[in-house]
Amino acid sequence: MISIVTMKLNVDDLIISALKEDITSEDISANSVIQADAIGTVDLIIKQNGVLAGLQVFERVFTLLDGGAVFETSVRDGDVVAAGALAGRLTGNMRALLSGERVALNFLQRMSGIATLTRRYADILRESGTKLVDTRKTTPGLRILEKYAVKAGGAENHRYNLSDAILLKDNHIAAAGGVRNAVERARKYAPFVSKIEIETESAEMVQEALDAGADIIMLDNMDDATMKDAVRLIGGRAKTECSGNVTEERLREIAEIGVDYVSSGALTHSCGILDISMKNMRPLG
Amino acid sequence: MISIVTMKLNVDDLIISALKEDITSEDISANSVIQADAIGTVDLIIKQNGVLAGLQVFERVFTLLDGGAVFETSVRDGDVVAAGALAGRLTGNMRALLSGERVALNFLQRMSGIATLTRRYADILRESGTKLVDTRKTTPGLRILEKYAVKAGGAENHRYNLSDAILLKDNHIAAAGGVRNAVERARKYAPFVSKIEIETESAEMVQEALDAGADIIMLDNMDDATMKDAVRLIGGRAKTECSGNVTEERLREIAEIGVDYVSSGALTHSCGILDISMKNMRPLG
Amino acid sequence: MISIVTMKLNVDDLIISALKEDITSEDISANSVIQADAIGTVDLIIKQNGVLAGLQVFERVFTLLDGGAVFETSVRDGDVVAAGALAGRLTGNMRALLSGERVALNFLQRMSGIATLTRRYADILRESGTKLVDTRKTTPGLRILEKYAVKAGGAENHRYNLSDAILLKDNHIAAAGGVRNAVERARKYAPFVSKIEIETESAEMVQEALDAGADIIMLDNMDDATMKDAVRLIGGRAKTECSGNVTEERLREIAEIGVDYVSSGALTHSCGILDISMKNMRPLG
Amino acid sequence: MISIVTMKLNVDDLIISALKEDITSEDISANSVIQADAIGTVDLIIKQNGVLAGLQVFERVFTLLDGGAVFETSVRDGDVVAAGALAGRLTGNMRALLSGERVALNFLQRMSGIATLTRRYADILRESGTKLVDTRKTTPGLRILEKYAVKAGGAENHRYNLSDAILLKDNHIAAAGGVRNAVERARKYAPFVSKIEIETESAEMVQEALDAGADIIMLDNMDDATMKDAVRLIGGRAKTECSGNVTEERLREIAEIGVDYVSSGALTHSCGILDISMKNMRPLG
Amino acid sequence: MISIVTMKLNVDDLIISALKEDITSEDISANSVIQADAIGTVDLIIKQNGVLAGLQVFERVFTLLDGGAVFETSVRDGDVVAAGALAGRLTGNMRALLSGERVALNFLQRMSGIATLTRRYADILRESGTKLVDTRKTTPGLRILEKYAVKAGGAENHRYNLSDAILLKDNHIAAAGGVRNAVERARKYAPFVSKIEIETESAEMVQEALDAGADIIMLDNMDDATMKDAVRLIGGRAKTECSGNVTEERLREIAEIGVDYVSSGALTHSCGILDISMKNMRPLG
Amino acid sequence: MISIVTMKLNVDDLIISALKEDITSEDISANSVIQADAIGTVDLIIKQNGVLAGLQVFERVFTLLDGGAVFETSVRDGDVVAAGALAGRLTGNMRALLSGERVALNFLQRMSGIATLTRRYADILRESGTKLVDTRKTTPGLRILEKYAVKAGGAENHRYNLSDAILLKDNHIAAAGGVRNAVERARKYAPFVSKIEIETESAEMVQEALDAGADIIMLDNMDDATMKDAVRLIGGRAKTECSGNVTEERLREIAEIGVDYVSSGALTHSCGILDISMKNMRPLG
Repeated sequence: MISIVTMKLNVDDLIISALKEDITSEDISANSVIQADAIGTVDLIIKQNGVLAGLQVFERVFTLLDGGAVFETSVRDGDVVAAGALAGRLTGNMRALLSGERVALNFLQRMSGIATLTRRYADILRESGTKLVDTRKTTPGLRILEKYAVKAGGAENHRYNLSDAILLKDNHIAAAGGVRNAVERARKYAPFVSKIEIETESAEMVQEALDAGADIIMLDNMDDATMKDAVRLIGGRAKTECSGNVTEERLREIAEIGVDYVSSGALTHSCGILDISMKNMRPLG
Repeated sequence: MISIVTMKLNVDDLIISALKEDITSEDISANSVIQADAIGTVDLIIKQNGVLAGLQVFERVFTLLDGGAVFETSVRDGDVVAAGALAGRLTGNMRALLSGERVALNFLQRMSGIATLTRRYADILRESGTKLVDTRKTTPGLRILEKYAVKAGGAENHRYNLSDAILLKDNHIAAAGGVRNAVERARKYAPFVSKIEIETESAEMVQEALDAGADIIMLDNMDDATMKDAVRLIGGRAKTECSGNVTEERLREIAEIGVDYVSSGALTHSCGILDISMKNMRPLG
Repeated sequence: MISIVTMKLNVDDLIISALKEDITSEDISANSVIQADAIGTVDLIIKQNGVLAGLQVFERVFTLLDGGAVFETSVRDGDVVAAGALAGRLTGNMRALLSGERVALNFLQRMSGIATLTRRYADILRESGTKLVDTRKTTPGLRILEKYAVKAGGAENHRYNLSDAILLKDNHIAAAGGVRNAVERARKYAPFVSKIEIETESAEMVQEALDAGADIIMLDNMDDATMKDAVRLIGGRAKTECSGNVTEERLREIAEIGVDYVSSGALTHSCGILDISMKNMRPLG
Repeated sequence: MISIVTMKLNVDDLIISALKEDITSEDISANSVIQADAIGTVDLIIKQNGVLAGLQVFERVFTLLDGGAVFETSVRDGDVVAAGALAGRLTGNMRALLSGERVALNFLQRMSGIATLTRRYADILRESGTKLVDTRKTTPGLRILEKYAVKAGGAENHRYNLSDAILLKDNHIAAAGGVRNAVERARKYAPFVSKIEIETESAEMVQEALDAGADIIMLDNMDDATMKDAVRLIGGRAKTECSGNVTEERLREIAEIGVDYVSSGALTHSCGILDISMKNMRPLG
Repeated sequence: MISIVTMKLNVDDLIISALKEDITSEDISANSVIQADAIGTVDLIIKQNGVLAGLQVFERVFTLLDGGAVFETSVRDGDVVAAGALAGRLTGNMRALLSGERVALNFLQRMSGIATLTRRYADILRESGTKLVDTRKTTPGLRILEKYAVKAGGAENHRYNLSDAILLKDNHIAAAGGVRNAVERARKYAPFVSKIEIETESAEMVQEALDAGADIIMLDNMDDATMKDAVRLIGGRAKTECSGNVTEERLREIAEIGVDYVSSGALTHSCGILDISMKNMRPLG
Repeated sequence: MISIVTMKLNVDDLIISALKEDITSEDISANSVIQADAIGTVDLIIKQNGVLAGLQVFERVFTLLDGGAVFETSVRDGDVVAAGALAGRLTGNMRALLSGERVALNFLQRMSGIATLTRRYADILRESGTKLVDTRKTTPGLRILEKYAVKAGGAENHRYNLSDAILLKDNHIAAAGGVRNAVERARKYAPFVSKIEIETESAEMVQEALDAGADIIMLDNMDDATMKDAVRLIGGRAKTECSGNVTEERLREIAEIGVDYVSSGALTHSCGILDISMKNMRPLG
């Protein structure tokens, strides 16, 4: 469940912005055919097998527009659902139901698409000691929801953004003049509560990172053999994260190599949606 | 090209919001290793074959952060690019280059992903009289960029949102008590500059829509035979739009049936990104 | 009635902005003389004959400031009211009543001013086949309320803004190199759901517009004879709109010429207000 | 001239909001017919005799959209202009010129409408010792521009809003239990830098106001005889302001009675616009 | 008590901004250990002797996050409290209590710090005819709360900002070419409802200010003898305000000189906080 | 120096908000006495010994208002300055200089006050192995500037906010049912890039925290003996932070005990300002 605090501070703003994007002046279609005060009910229907995420966001679209709207549902974020299932029933001002439909589904479908792909990847790693994490390759503006959907799907979050953890990549290392310098400058500059992660591409860099005392060593775009050597070299003295070219097919091999974490941008940037729709609107009373 | 007006009124806000999402207080990694006033250059490298869209957005991320940043490129939105190509070179304050990198790529990759899929679909329809159009199934907050990317990919835009055209769907028709009533109420309520489109699912509904004088008739989730009959029945008296279950495989058949437009939500909701990266950052001077 | 959706997405923001404009730190007059938790009642009095519009906006000013405020009224937007009438009674926190008074009246008076003038014009056209429409000559920031007031007054809305319909005027035609080019470019560029309207000033331009297949032909600043010829020439093949120099006196003549629509900027830019006031505040209990 | 500080802190926001109101996604008419980088020139033509106000606002609409736009003019706010005059010439990106036209004119026409009516009223009072002032009956959101236009027209401003001066009206006096109490509570509550003005409707109230030490006494809706007595009674011990039923016809009489100030809401709420247009757009070079 | 109007128009925004500053994505500590729907209670404990201000702000932090939160307290703004006192008890969603704690205390502690210092200063002046007032040396963004806290502490407010009163200082006087010119220009330019205050540093300037008819004369950084002479010279013909080098030690002397007002920037810029904390959180039920 | 990225994304907004707080409609004092286009120069004078922080913020106030304003200075953030020193010279539009003065100084004085107190504390710890860090007890809205000022003063930053690191305090521990549970839940919930800090009040809690594998152990409100034992017990297996009752007098003792970090809320909540002023404004040319 999304915290009551996040709903208020972040989600409400996102919903209002999305509604304003979709409704400039008014919904001329809905307002043509529906009386201003008509009340109705509509069903939320699952059209594809998958994992749900975003039910609170879906609901809030309507309760923001109509304080009296009610969403009844027996499913929760993270639940597996099957095509054809009735996921819930929404009752309220019919103009609000119609005008909010597309926005509410756009959120729910995208979030559920992420949860669905994440679950598929996470299931592959389930028996292993390797954990799946996300990246910052999220849709601009929706990171908070997309990272939540990743958790609903069963994976963990990497850092939220550039301000909450250190990750030194190729361009940082080049600018600092090497791995050791980069780690040292970061340790000096950053709040001491942050761990320091650094990207490595070779055994030499891994060794340097260990010597510099990095907390987390990213093994970037390494082939299996190099990665295996790296994990052996590190020997638990730092956490390891496999990154780059992480396809569904390769997940099992990566897990067998024994890295602690494997990160996948695809979870949020190339997952597609889960098809869900609102059907059978009917007036009440 | 995106109009200078849209850049100012819409794109700048989107970029600033995305940057704030990615940088709460500061980019602690970049600021650890880079001097506040260091100037550098970095390459924009294409990593996958596709079609570009969003180069102005990419560039503006950096010029907003550093008024003196310069992006040199010889490609344009809509251009086909190949994996490995150098798409441009960016010069400016190195902190700005590093801190803006992910946001700039997140925009460019998504927009190019849309343009790439759109081009693939549009190419299938090229010789036909049927035109590809998008839907409102866009990412909340990014519609303006996603609809632009669809055009860069070679398709056309359907309505922008609920305020600029009438589209009467199943729920509207039910609420109005039938196709004729729905069209009449819309004609009475909506500005006379709007065309009226109505969704139909059977020959009977198509006939009703024709009788009611609908400008555009959507043929929703029809099988090929039903759609063929509908197009024949309409006989040019209204524009036709095929919608629902539009897969890449089925596009050619749809075109042969002779509908005027075919709309695809997948263009914006399930396209995945085009992989592009910023590499080889080096200090200047 | 304004839709619940518009109230939430647009009107609330307008009201809050207006209140902030009128109250920087606090209402020092009200706070000097009224206890923070005093409850009172005040009457809404009509001071001029006219047509009301904006009662929901008036009410919401107070319910936004004081969730417990109540507005009782028996009139509705679009109703004709007479000087001296008691239009309603408002009860709530007295500081909220006093501090919101001017803002609430500024909205209600302006909207009612528009509805009043619109009704006067619309009544002249009532028996004719010509409909009265508004323009984009609205007050910056208030278009949504002003266009609503026009409808409450009995006229129809033209397009909402530059994004929801095509209207090609003299400067567009010149830039495109003539009427035909302008219409063709618009048909190619704009979403197919938009009608295309073009401004004409002579019979030649009307003929060109017809040939180009314009959906709506604006007859701009034409004298009666030219307009009559234009309407005859068009013969129902496109909708016609008379624009320019539309005075109250000339409305009947225009209607007799048989144009479909006549647009008047004065409805929103030069209508003046309808005088309404809040009187007889008294403490409750 | 509007101060550089006000332009930055207030006017820019107003303009951007107005442009966003008029352009949701893009200006589809302009973008259909004009190349993205075309440069052109257009004339600003006065179509009605009057007084100008808002030239900086007009200009800034275009320089905000196109940093390279240039407005050349030889007139200034407060200047009298005649129908037919060429007020200036604007050069810049043609899309920006077309897309900004309506918004720029909506500001300039309204502000000039205010300045024009204000000048007419102010001229009547010119030889007298009575000064014309405005009220808070301004358009929600535009007060800063409308009060500026009043000054450009030749009158003075009353208080800006509820936070910068004390004005105790009928409802305040009733709540406080009389004139004396109201003034005393205000003196106790409000910052000592504020003058205290109180509304009176009879000789008795005027006497009470004098006794309570009010700085300014409003003579509200008094007939000439009562007002004359009031002015004599006050005898310069407080400033006087005539308010209510201030028509153009009555201005001269009011001045002869010798009040210090006369306030008119009509200056901002019922002035109508001054007709001005942009004509003859042509490409450059 | 803060007015219901100010709470809605100003305080809510300040609180939401502060919460967003403190919570980017989510409160990872609270969300780790607390269930999303757990309800609990926590005590508000005073840890230092002082004067309270800001209890409504403290409460609203929690009711904004959790509409069902309840704050029970028997103290009010302006009350003297002693270290160790239980100031209230807060019940609601435990995540909301934990996540809002620091922000709520940051407001309450700062406001109470101001009230505490103000009370100490005001008590020194209690028997005198001199009143303590604040300045514009407030924390950027918090002026409305800080000026309220000053009143809760027992002093009065000077002007709120640059728009609501005239205060001509050394730089203004220099720019105008002397005291007389400065006052005259201000009288001509500013709304007639504003008093005019001018800063003086010598007997000559005081005399000039009197001659120019200033309403308030600031005696800036004068030694006691000069100030005494100034007060005698003014003789009640204008209000007097002592400013500059106002230390706690010197307050009594200043009062004896007989100025009307003494202003102190330290009340808001150097007061420190009053230590208050939230303790003993326990689950309910 | 503040990064160009932070200036754009955060500081500009803070400045604009502060200016709007101080100027509702216009600066009536400055605009009364200064021509709209007058150019002038003014000196920035230090009035108290201390350490500077915020010079870029000071400068940006003026360059935001007047794009042509120039600030010449030879000092930098972190520099020690003495009363009487000329810190710089500012040239630009005189209205902008006068209207921005108070806001610019309010920022600079507060930030320099923090840097000054921080330097005093940090100097005490200079030879020790203990580092001074700040807290989240910052002014609502100004955290980014206050944490920067702490660094300019010579200390380090603790976490920025609730989203970027785990700190489990008494209320969290109680809610989780003990130290071990709290740490375990946090490790499970939080991104793996975050270190976990936990508050302890006794040797038992310290031992539990060690057993649970906490990265950082806060020694909260411990007396010297308890703290000494705790540090010995921890023996380098976790970082240590002393918190609570950290007075200037006690700093040296704390350092001798050998904790790694000592945190002080007073740095940001009770430092007072450093007195700085703008003097000698004179017209140019």
